[in-house]
Amino acid sequence: MEVKYPNLKKEYKKHASTTKTVDANKARLGFSFEEAINESNAYYLTKGIAVIHKKPTPVQIVSVSYPKRSAAKITEAYFKIPSTTDYNGIFKGRYLDFEAKQTNSDSFPFAHIYSHQIHHLEEVAKQGGISFLLIHFNKKDEIFLLDVSLLSACYANSKEGGRKSIAYTYFKEHGFLIQKGFAPRIPYLDVVQQHYIKTKEGN
Amino acid sequence: MEVKYPNLKKEYKKHASTTKTVDANKARLGFSFEEAINESNAYYLTKGIAVIHKKPTPVQIVSVSYPKRSAAKITEAYFKIPSTTDYNGIFKGRYLDFEAKQTNSDSFPFAHIYSHQIHHLEEVAKQGGISFLLIHFNKKDEIFLLDVSLLSACYANSKEGGRKSIAYTYFKEHGFLIQKGFAPRIPYLDVVQQHYIKTKEGN
Repeated sequence: MEVKYPNLKKEYKKHASTTKTVDANKARLGFSFEEAINESNAYYLTKGIAVIHKKPTPVQIVSVSYPKRSAAKITEAYFKIPSTTDYNGIFKGRYLDFEAKQTNSDSFPFAHIYSHQIHHLEEVAKQGGISFLLIHFNKKDEIFLLDVSLLSACYANSKEGGRKSIAYTYFKEHGFLIQKGFAPRIPYLDVVQQHYIKTKEGN
Repeated sequence: MEVKYPNLKKEYKKHASTTKTVDANKARLGFSFEEAINESNAYYLTKGIAVIHKKPTPVQIVSVSYPKRSAAKITEAYFKIPSTTDYNGIFKGRYLDFEAKQTNSDSFPFAHIYSHQIHHLEEVAKQGGISFLLIHFNKKDEIFLLDVSLLSACYANSKEGGRKSIAYTYFKEHGFLIQKGFAPRIPYLDVVQQHYIKTKEGN
């Protein structure tokens, strides 16, 4: 499963045949959104509100060197396709799982998420977990939470010849807008509390 | 946070100043136990019983090269200290989180787990999740599940001058023995079902 990591595609084209020292996170589209989510999760953790972490980027390690008196150095490795999603954890006793994406366009293209990631979110919901997509529309600077059931429905429709993306207007109508804050910067658990915990308590 | 990854220490000494092509997982102690857990989780997933995954090994990427017409290649990276535990997921609507270890000795030394990992397991329990240590005693070929409350108590005791490890006999007395099976090979969710779900239902 050695892949051209999708988020690195642009960098890949720009720097073809070159080697560059990079912070891989920064090279990925969506870094600042990711950072804001991580900060929010750190806030939730500190306040004892929730325990939610980003999973490490999966890497296939091929070669490691062991220099004397210093840390083991990975000298050849490749980005792997993630088998699940970016984030999971626990909030108010409930298992929570989501993928975070951002887009520069006015829609969210299904090309930006793996079908097995959508499937994973569905499996989580079946087990009684809370699962969703968190999306940042960069130009509008708006964040929406879209429940897995709607994400799945749109995806199924796309497989049957429907549109290959979800329009901004769909998120605006069917998703939940996350009001940005200061601490945490992305208070998405307010929305989870309101729409999953309160209304679905005991489910 | 570039570290000598603890599990690689032995390999590190053996191969000092050499480069070797390795499967990093195989280089780590505990590979076969880890593989058996992963297989068990794959079984649980296929059967719709639970959604539990191993988190990727965290790696700090320093340098990536982008050769023409092939996958982005990581050319310099280091193992990072994991911020949480190896495994988490959902079972019967409950959030589940655990660290898996194996030992060749007759005890489990606290040197083999990071204090912040124990702290993470405690945080999970506080949020209403199920968290524990899964340990394989290699020589006896026995696996025990030890609840975080007992792990924490022993660890706190070690910090106050008590023993720096947990004896096999302690696991035998206070842990739950996992009977090995064929499918799944490590049916640890039987024990979780029996001791957490049944008795603690509704907690």
